[in-house]
Amino acid sequence: MGEFELLARVRERLPPPSPRVRVGPGDDAAVTIPGGATATSVDALVEGVHFRRERASLRQIGAKALAAGLSDLAAMGAEPGEAYVVLGVPTDLGEDECLELLDGTLALAASTGTTLAGGDLVRSASLTLAITVVGHASSPEDLVTRSGARPGDALVLTGELGGAAAGLIVLDRPEEAAAIPATVRDRLRARQLEPVPRLAAGRAIAAAGATAMIDVSDGLGGDAGHLARASGVGLLIDAQALPLCEGIAEVAALVGRDPVQLAASGGEDYELLASIPAAGLDLEKLVVDAGAPLTRIGEAVAGSGVEIRLPGGRMLKPDGYDQLR
Amino acid sequence: MGEFELLARVRERLPPPSPRVRVGPGDDAAVTIPGGATATSVDALVEGVHFRRERASLRQIGAKALAAGLSDLAAMGAEPGEAYVVLGVPTDLGEDECLELLDGTLALAASTGTTLAGGDLVRSASLTLAITVVGHASSPEDLVTRSGARPGDALVLTGELGGAAAGLIVLDRPEEAAAIPATVRDRLRARQLEPVPRLAAGRAIAAAGATAMIDVSDGLGGDAGHLARASGVGLLIDAQALPLCEGIAEVAALVGRDPVQLAASGGEDYELLASIPAAGLDLEKLVVDAGAPLTRIGEAVAGSGVEIRLPGGRMLKPDGYDQLR
Repeated sequence: MGEFELLARVRERLPPPSPRVRVGPGDDAAVTIPGGATATSVDALVEGVHFRRERASLRQIGAKALAAGLSDLAAMGAEPGEAYVVLGVPTDLGEDECLELLDGTLALAASTGTTLAGGDLVRSASLTLAITVVGHASSPEDLVTRSGARPGDALVLTGELGGAAAGLIVLDRPEEAAAIPATVRDRLRARQLEPVPRLAAGRAIAAAGATAMIDVSDGLGGDAGHLARASGVGLLIDAQALPLCEGIAEVAALVGRDPVQLAASGGEDYELLASIPAAGLDLEKLVVDAGAPLTRIGEAVAGSGVEIRLPGGRMLKPDGYDQLR
Repeated sequence: MGEFELLARVRERLPPPSPRVRVGPGDDAAVTIPGGATATSVDALVEGVHFRRERASLRQIGAKALAAGLSDLAAMGAEPGEAYVVLGVPTDLGEDECLELLDGTLALAASTGTTLAGGDLVRSASLTLAITVVGHASSPEDLVTRSGARPGDALVLTGELGGAAAGLIVLDRPEEAAAIPATVRDRLRARQLEPVPRLAAGRAIAAAGATAMIDVSDGLGGDAGHLARASGVGLLIDAQALPLCEGIAEVAALVGRDPVQLAASGGEDYELLASIPAAGLDLEKLVVDAGAPLTRIGEAVAGSGVEIRLPGGRMLKPDGYDQLR
């Protein structure tokens, strides 16, 4: 496979860059005109660790790698700008397949206003995607970190929980899952394979005065813990308030798990968890601005740690997610 | 290996960030205050493709991956800013070894004024480093692309050629190379294993009015071709003017190659090739400003392609470098 020829074919597929991008792929570096502040995140997906080619189409893999990065920008409240893609190509992936994968990346880039501004192609033992995303804001104060939550803040969560984890189980156990309605299964699989970053919601929640925000891609339990630690607060979450996705009870039953436990532990939901001053919080208005469902699931309190409270005062302990993967 | 624990150990090693970096590693994204224009480049190195652990120390591998990216910023004339490191960790690389590798990255970051502002750790079959570097400039006009060379421009090259390729041969054939003086061998190995990006030279050459610039990491022949194509000019290079590194004749003889051919084809020299208007070019002053040796090696002409002229009118044809690697 010729690197320069493949790069030329990639460049043919690129739409015109955004006005921010003065020099796109093909020079030593891309040249961009940033906003007053930039948010930058890198994420890597490795075959056999984060995805399997027999489960996901190449387009889905290419899109999901970008979605993971864009979700980090969403969690900052940043406007998506540029993406830079490192593709590690194993010998069993041909040129057309590389382009198919990149078409998935480009489709999500187009729908989110992201310009693919550069990249690198290398040989690799396993198919690997490392994507850098750069988002923009007028000033650093417009961006929301994990560290500003204060006791008394309300905790809000976009969308639904558990769909990606349930989708993985449906993919793993197609025969056992056959009793679940096909439309529900399709939706759960899509939550696993085709996540959509909450970019507009992230900007709306930031504009509404969020004090801290994080995406729950590592699971609500783990990521709430990150936010609590970074902010120096405790978080109380009402398990009954958690917005569980449709079908999770049936899927959790297939593997003998509790649905709330599965939803609170399973990662890859790419929803946003934010703290926001409770005084003056108008959730109905925020839902409209965010263009996404929003649920108030708890509050920040003085102290540390995360408690997910079940009825009767019991506590739910989410699974850890700390192994290198 | 616990991802979060290793990340905590990495963060302990990080020096204070530059004033540009408002939020460093540990949040969803890094927050920076960019210049009026940014230059961004991504590079990946994969074990078994770009390096071997039995040849290079982990510190050298960690530094070289960053050097490759910084060399791209040098070729734009950008001020180095931030680096983001994706580390793909195979199971036979322990936590202490990951830190050793990152210490190499951090040492070069410190000596070049680069802040390690974020990253990702993932499991991988082969040790993989994907590094994104971001450089800054006051405006896009201060950055030098590959595409501005005009007929009549002089071609200048920093440093020396062939050292990295010769160093690889010395590493490959230690017994045959034993006849070459040890100091020469050491220097050639260092050119291969410990490249130093020409950041100050790049900025000085840009400030002196360079019309186009590129690093010759893929070999002078190939990269001159990129510059020629991007600029729509031809390049005439005088083979006798090429600044060959000491010892290259002896090393080339070990493998039955012509030294000039080896120097013009071998990549990884991380020197800069620039076009600059010949009128008013004060090479002696530029050498002082650049803090690096500079050699005038040819000129841009109307036409296309690259000709490397040997005495007697013969042409040197550098090896291609197009295979995906």
